[in-house]
Amino acid sequence: MIDRLCIIGVGLIGGSLARALRAAGYCREVVGSGRDPAHLQQAVDLGVIDRFDTDLEAAVAGADMVLVAVPLGAMQTVFSRIRDHLDDNAVLTDAGSAKASVIEAAQQSFGRVPERFVPGHPIAGTEYSGVAASLPDLYHNRHVILTPLDHTDTDAIDRVRRMWEAAGAVVTSMDAIHHDAVLAATSHLPHVLAFTLVDTLSTLDDREELFEYAAGGFRDFTRIASSDPVMWRDICLANGDAIQLLIDRFIEDLQSLSRAVHTHDGQRLLDVFESAKQARDAFVKK
Amino acid sequence: MIDRLCIIGVGLIGGSLARALRAAGYCREVVGSGRDPAHLQQAVDLGVIDRFDTDLEAAVAGADMVLVAVPLGAMQTVFSRIRDHLDDNAVLTDAGSAKASVIEAAQQSFGRVPERFVPGHPIAGTEYSGVAASLPDLYHNRHVILTPLDHTDTDAIDRVRRMWEAAGAVVTSMDAIHHDAVLAATSHLPHVLAFTLVDTLSTLDDREELFEYAAGGFRDFTRIASSDPVMWRDICLANGDAIQLLIDRFIEDLQSLSRAVHTHDGQRLLDVFESAKQARDAFVKK
Repeated sequence: MIDRLCIIGVGLIGGSLARALRAAGYCREVVGSGRDPAHLQQAVDLGVIDRFDTDLEAAVAGADMVLVAVPLGAMQTVFSRIRDHLDDNAVLTDAGSAKASVIEAAQQSFGRVPERFVPGHPIAGTEYSGVAASLPDLYHNRHVILTPLDHTDTDAIDRVRRMWEAAGAVVTSMDAIHHDAVLAATSHLPHVLAFTLVDTLSTLDDREELFEYAAGGFRDFTRIASSDPVMWRDICLANGDAIQLLIDRFIEDLQSLSRAVHTHDGQRLLDVFESAKQARDAFVKK
Repeated sequence: MIDRLCIIGVGLIGGSLARALRAAGYCREVVGSGRDPAHLQQAVDLGVIDRFDTDLEAAVAGADMVLVAVPLGAMQTVFSRIRDHLDDNAVLTDAGSAKASVIEAAQQSFGRVPERFVPGHPIAGTEYSGVAASLPDLYHNRHVILTPLDHTDTDAIDRVRRMWEAAGAVVTSMDAIHHDAVLAATSHLPHVLAFTLVDTLSTLDDREELFEYAAGGFRDFTRIASSDPVMWRDICLANGDAIQLLIDRFIEDLQSLSRAVHTHDGQRLLDVFESAKQARDAFVKK
């Protein structure tokens, strides 16, 4: 049980956790914080949080659990502002999509990564953002990856784990660097490709007509290109090395496929498409 | 009205047209043809076609409308086999995803592209294939593009147009080369990217773990990588020039984005992501 949960950044991710924990009766009070009072008032009106305080320092006071769910580029500023205002027993966690950069931000802000800071990442979301898009069941049966350090307090880890489990998630742990490599492949690269494809097409001369004749496959393929640009800019900056490695690998594979098209190498095309279909069908079956 | 419709290749595309026209009472009899009698029997059992004949020559005899809905690589063989067995007044059409290659196949098989051959392409489909996946409303409000030649018979064009309209589709016409460029951008390139991404990931060392942590965004992004590999091999071979042009353009844009990641150019990343999100949101609104 959580007594007072403070959520900094009450959007899709923070708002959905608040909704889930309230539905589960897992916390007595949810206090929101962030920059925009109108947005936070909307969160109160929607019943997602009990109250809010745009003053970060005041918002975290008295909270036994603090979740920072802001874009990666804002993490260090938030950490620096709350560092001297957290309760001694408060557990601090975050929901950032890249973990090494958040750990580095904590290191910079606190001098040393706090023992009661548990870096975390719920692997869930939609292409929508903002508290109005939050859902009580967003985390149901979804993975949450924690990336604690060697010196992270085990009680703090347990409390964060239990919180996400109360929201319906399946919680695992791994090294931050490994997390960033895994997510670069399955999430960051696909987002970069979707954004780039839509951008490529929208700079072609006949773009109006192109979009007119695009069908369901295109709609699904580009769904993630409707995601929040600021969040994704920050992810690309925070996890750039891992993302670049995969972009390079992908371009190599795409050039190889392009050569097969050029040389009319039907067997090679069939091999790639069959192996991809097999892997994707197996992924869906799971 | 159609008296006898002959569908060569009773899969998702041909089967869905048959279902739609039967539901609309638009044709008296549907005769199926293809290579696999078990598959055709299944189409009869599902009520998609009335009867079948694996002998192409016999199947087309007496039909006033013949739809060839086979992979692009099989078009020329089919045309050559039916050329001397079509009724004088029969209208011939096809459902191939690239049009210049089908017209070339007709040219090769018939000596001259027949006046009563109307190249066509229904822009609809799912990642599933086969007659069991066919749907009566697959073409409802979807585009069908016809790419007639200058000498194509206007009565034949009208009859093909009315057939697709009876199935619920919106029919337009354009030049075959232009069609192929449009589809390369909105359909062929996305499919190539999805196949390549899944292939890239499935050759990484930690592929098992990667797929374990892939979420909904990845699922939608890669849905089209579950499409029929033979169909897509043929499309890549048939529309290779247009596809290669777009792959090259896409790689340029992706490399430019990769450079922005490398140089920590947040403004450039934000510009690309915002413009892509705007274009994609506008596409969905339509």
